Amino acid sequence: MIRVGIVGGTGYTGSELLRLLVRHERVEVSAVTSRSLAGTEVAEFHPGLRGAIELVFSTPEAAGLADCDLVLFATPNGTAMNEAAALLDAGARVIDLAADFRIKDLSVWEHWYGMTHAAPALVEEAVYGLPEVNREAIASARLVANPGCYPTAVTLGLLPLLEAGAVDPARLIADVKSGVSGAGRKASAALLMAECGESFKSYSVGGHRHQPEIRENLRQAVGVDVGLTFVPHLVPMVRGIEASLYAPLEQRDLDLQTLFENRYRDEPFVDVLPLGSAVETRSVRGTNLCRLSVLEPQGAGVVVVQSIIDNLVKGAAGQAVQNMNIMFGWDEAAGLALSALAP
Amino acid sequence: MIRVGIVGGTGYTGSELLRLLVRHERVEVSAVTSRSLAGTEVAEFHPGLRGAIELVFSTPEAAGLADCDLVLFATPNGTAMNEAAALLDAGARVIDLAADFRIKDLSVWEHWYGMTHAAPALVEEAVYGLPEVNREAIASARLVANPGCYPTAVTLGLLPLLEAGAVDPARLIADVKSGVSGAGRKASAALLMAECGESFKSYSVGGHRHQPEIRENLRQAVGVDVGLTFVPHLVPMVRGIEASLYAPLEQRDLDLQTLFENRYRDEPFVDVLPLGSAVETRSVRGTNLCRLSVLEPQGAGVVVVQSIIDNLVKGAAGQAVQNMNIMFGWDEAAGLALSALAP
Amino acid sequence: MIRVGIVGGTGYTGSELLRLLVRHERVEVSAVTSRSLAGTEVAEFHPGLRGAIELVFSTPEAAGLADCDLVLFATPNGTAMNEAAALLDAGARVIDLAADFRIKDLSVWEHWYGMTHAAPALVEEAVYGLPEVNREAIASARLVANPGCYPTAVTLGLLPLLEAGAVDPARLIADVKSGVSGAGRKASAALLMAECGESFKSYSVGGHRHQPEIRENLRQAVGVDVGLTFVPHLVPMVRGIEASLYAPLEQRDLDLQTLFENRYRDEPFVDVLPLGSAVETRSVRGTNLCRLSVLEPQGAGVVVVQSIIDNLVKGAAGQAVQNMNIMFGWDEAAGLALSALAP
Amino acid sequence: MIRVGIVGGTGYTGSELLRLLVRHERVEVSAVTSRSLAGTEVAEFHPGLRGAIELVFSTPEAAGLADCDLVLFATPNGTAMNEAAALLDAGARVIDLAADFRIKDLSVWEHWYGMTHAAPALVEEAVYGLPEVNREAIASARLVANPGCYPTAVTLGLLPLLEAGAVDPARLIADVKSGVSGAGRKASAALLMAECGESFKSYSVGGHRHQPEIRENLRQAVGVDVGLTFVPHLVPMVRGIEASLYAPLEQRDLDLQTLFENRYRDEPFVDVLPLGSAVETRSVRGTNLCRLSVLEPQGAGVVVVQSIIDNLVKGAAGQAVQNMNIMFGWDEAAGLALSALAP
Repeated sequence: MIRVGIVGGTGYTGSELLRLLVRHERVEVSAVTSRSLAGTEVAEFHPGLRGAIELVFSTPEAAGLADCDLVLFATPNGTAMNEAAALLDAGARVIDLAADFRIKDLSVWEHWYGMTHAAPALVEEAVYGLPEVNREAIASARLVANPGCYPTAVTLGLLPLLEAGAVDPARLIADVKSGVSGAGRKASAALLMAECGESFKSYSVGGHRHQPEIRENLRQAVGVDVGLTFVPHLVPMVRGIEASLYAPLEQRDLDLQTLFENRYRDEPFVDVLPLGSAVETRSVRGTNLCRLSVLEPQGAGVVVVQSIIDNLVKGAAGQAVQNMNIMFGWDEAAGLALSALAP
Repeated sequence: MIRVGIVGGTGYTGSELLRLLVRHERVEVSAVTSRSLAGTEVAEFHPGLRGAIELVFSTPEAAGLADCDLVLFATPNGTAMNEAAALLDAGARVIDLAADFRIKDLSVWEHWYGMTHAAPALVEEAVYGLPEVNREAIASARLVANPGCYPTAVTLGLLPLLEAGAVDPARLIADVKSGVSGAGRKASAALLMAECGESFKSYSVGGHRHQPEIRENLRQAVGVDVGLTFVPHLVPMVRGIEASLYAPLEQRDLDLQTLFENRYRDEPFVDVLPLGSAVETRSVRGTNLCRLSVLEPQGAGVVVVQSIIDNLVKGAAGQAVQNMNIMFGWDEAAGLALSALAP
Repeated sequence: MIRVGIVGGTGYTGSELLRLLVRHERVEVSAVTSRSLAGTEVAEFHPGLRGAIELVFSTPEAAGLADCDLVLFATPNGTAMNEAAALLDAGARVIDLAADFRIKDLSVWEHWYGMTHAAPALVEEAVYGLPEVNREAIASARLVANPGCYPTAVTLGLLPLLEAGAVDPARLIADVKSGVSGAGRKASAALLMAECGESFKSYSVGGHRHQPEIRENLRQAVGVDVGLTFVPHLVPMVRGIEASLYAPLEQRDLDLQTLFENRYRDEPFVDVLPLGSAVETRSVRGTNLCRLSVLEPQGAGVVVVQSIIDNLVKGAAGQAVQNMNIMFGWDEAAGLALSALAP
Repeated sequence: MIRVGIVGGTGYTGSELLRLLVRHERVEVSAVTSRSLAGTEVAEFHPGLRGAIELVFSTPEAAGLADCDLVLFATPNGTAMNEAAALLDAGARVIDLAADFRIKDLSVWEHWYGMTHAAPALVEEAVYGLPEVNREAIASARLVANPGCYPTAVTLGLLPLLEAGAVDPARLIADVKSGVSGAGRKASAALLMAECGESFKSYSVGGHRHQPEIRENLRQAVGVDVGLTFVPHLVPMVRGIEASLYAPLEQRDLDLQTLFENRYRDEPFVDVLPLGSAVETRSVRGTNLCRLSVLEPQGAGVVVVQSIIDNLVKGAAGQAVQNMNIMFGWDEAAGLALSALAP
């Protein structure tokens, strides 16, 4: 039983961490922070957790975070970079679910996130928490940068192709679609249901922060810069990401299905569907799975891969729990044995 | 470990039973039947269950149901009444999630369900599976009639008032709203998303089969016939029921909140919210909970109770699992320790 | 051709006024105000209006409102009460789509709206803009208080019953459901799609501002105070209101269907459906219609009426256009000959 | 005033034709056919049309179609090919909203639609009703093949690029997303709201009938075969299509925005948005517009165009009305002056 503190308990990654951790047998959630709600019962704010948690929100100062074995940051970007060092010094381990430690190239990070980084040394130390790539490093990490939701879905879908040299890395395309919870719980007119309901829209078409994160992931796989056109869309639903990935095929005689199955054969949370399967986000809703489907090319020399995740689970809180399980040497699926909620 | 057979594995109550039972530690699902899909892998039809179940669909004949400890009928109305007797004779216990054994008055049942009942003696024997009323009888039952979704929500909301004589039983009103999964998975133009999406509608306004079931439940509570106006509506969402219940208050000095809290104090799956709480169906999504809220009267002598459930869980499969747990003497919450999926 | 100014052009009532007025042959929209967007093209903010309007947003000061024949306030509550007098003095006529002039009893208004009223004399002068009740007074009014969305749906549904003395006015119940656009376009976490989507919830269960407005409407119909239990709910859709109205029947031999048909026989925007019809909000989507359905009582002495409107049209902008048409002596349906958008 | 008959009045293209034509000043709808509903009032089946249409459904035989000036087929594929010849012989003109006359290459058509074509000569005669390409031929046509919904959105988005030789025609990609009404009103379990709601899915990933239609359109533009990867998705909403189009840029110094603006400068129903605009389907909901947005390339040599339409209007019934207006020499926008329903 370890003591886990959650910094930022009112957003969606925070509430999803709670949904998972209150059922995790090796974890005691010892503190959940919120400055604005300090003193309020967590279950009053999250009525779905009534009966499952007794805690009240604390201020970060009163939360005893330094005494935790693990601190999870479910905060806006720019918070963990100011607070992680002290916690690490005190002996806690840290997973940041925001973007502070995801990108190694500081100038790229500072360009996209619009701030000066407060902890460059920790960026260098941090392990990018994609178990399918970095499992060993995660196991011994003090500080894990939990990946973004789109980067998880896109990276897992393109990795086998790039590692095998199957496609031209200069002309990759990711047409990605997300439910609205991906934008978080901040009050914003653009995310009102009256703005998003019964409509499908594109956004951030001039550039999205997750594009450089994906490019960095993929560059590590192939050793060279990749060209990636990345176009995000907003779907009138709450949860789920689908990424349709297109790449010019270079090796025509490759068995793509076998390539994917071999790459992910031992992964507990990547499921390669039969060749040519359609995908639906509800088949991963509430679970930590990434399901991948390779489509048969339509004669235009383009390979298509479809990747689906629940943005709040494998795209955020579930992947953090998976990383935690690895860091503490437990069964990687502890607390994550969840069936999809479908319909 | 008991052997459980599911008759009818392609509808929503069937798939929800599977979602719950593949995680239940004391259950082995030994057969799932479907005439049309016999031979197909269950997880091919329900991709959300990939990795969690290895079975293929069987015909009912080949399923070995008579060797099961428990058979769950997730079939259309009129199926279990023809098949239950043979299974009971063979020593299996049976829970019917359809309506065949819910109403004791055969003429009422035959009027609303439009068929002649095939097993009147079993109607008499069957125990109505609402644990909050019939827990002891369920424990020893061979045959349990799992309640309808609306009857579960409405009965639990009105029972404390009627048992206490707090309201006039002649003028009860239930304004109920359900997500579309309540209608099942049958192909029907009226339930297409293009018909139901972005619209709110009433249906069955001339009379609904669940009204007599509720009246029978309530009559048992007060010993006299009740008058119930029951108006169902369809909400453009998949899961969830909200019942707003109105009744003329007869005892003005009663502490309604305490009444409800006392009635359900020991119930693992009924949660009485603080007085005057608003309700939202997502706070019970995916769980077996019924949450109840008593509103403060607005000066017109009318008490308002709001009751929410997930129609597929406490309104169907979850309540069946709860009944199974009671029947086999296990912890009533086994396999049902689920946090609400919110958002 | 009259000159019309719209004060507040960025919210939903403002944009809906624009949708209707750019197609109205007797109207020139001469100004649309927005302090924050002054100088921006209206069609840049409302891309659905590209090609239909050339205006840029003005500040209220620069908009030349005093030179308009009619000024429409699509502003938050508390704005029109400060600005209407000067415009009326300058000779413009005014319709307020907010609540400033809806309730005659100032103490009631000030209680529910939490401010001191700035123009009590105008409250007295204002005509409540429900054409089905006040058509003649509207025709000659300088200042019209456009009704709230719920009050429109509920009042039209209950009026025939109360005028005929058919029901007990002390125990009226309105179980009302609205799409999310009824809450306006203000940034609010509670109205995010991630909060409202795939969930049904109640809100303002301790009291809602529209309840006293409805009670005032109904008191005028019967000459005595009415008792009204009013419970609002939020539906995961954008547009539409359904009100299910319940009242204890006092005259059992009345032909309710004929009562409703006679009451609204000459009304261009009230449609009485055949007895016992189910209702669906999409059948009025985008139109100025209120459709009413009287259900046959289910034996509990309770009459049920269902009333549907599009909250942004008959519940706001469309009713304002209807009032404008009456005020200027035009065909009451000018600019409102719209077919429902279904599906 | 011309007499128009609608064959097939119960599906979504039929109901949308009615929504538009009951407001069209030069058209009298003289018959609406439905075998199953013959004798029923049209407005009973389509309650949104109450008050706007007095007709009852007729059988095709009793509908007097041969006396119509124009017959619109809103029928399943394979109907019009059997019935058009007799109507044309009788002097009526015909627009088929289904696919019978869209593809000139009969073997391709027969492969994708799974039937032998009954009227090859009419395929040759038929004019493909995309006004932006074939306006003159439409004006004098007896028989118009109304384009598919995806082909309209994709063709309009790719045409300027291909006509200008700006992209490599061998590697075009269309990632398309549609609301559920695109699949029509047929009873199908896969299109239930409980299957489609709160989920995003791909479908027909092994090949879709609209792909060859688009390829034929584009081949005519460039004179050579094009390579097109076409991947459709289903969005949990009722109306709207978004097509994200990707193509390898060959001419880097081209001003793409000007190219698009020039191509569609005189088109009443194509709106080129400012460079780099995001799109949202609600901005065309209920209208006959196609809005196009050219995005600035992200450095990978790929041009991105986004195209949105309302699948039932510009993608079906509205385009048919536009074609009718052209055929009869009227203002091309008659009956189509509609503002988008947003929100």
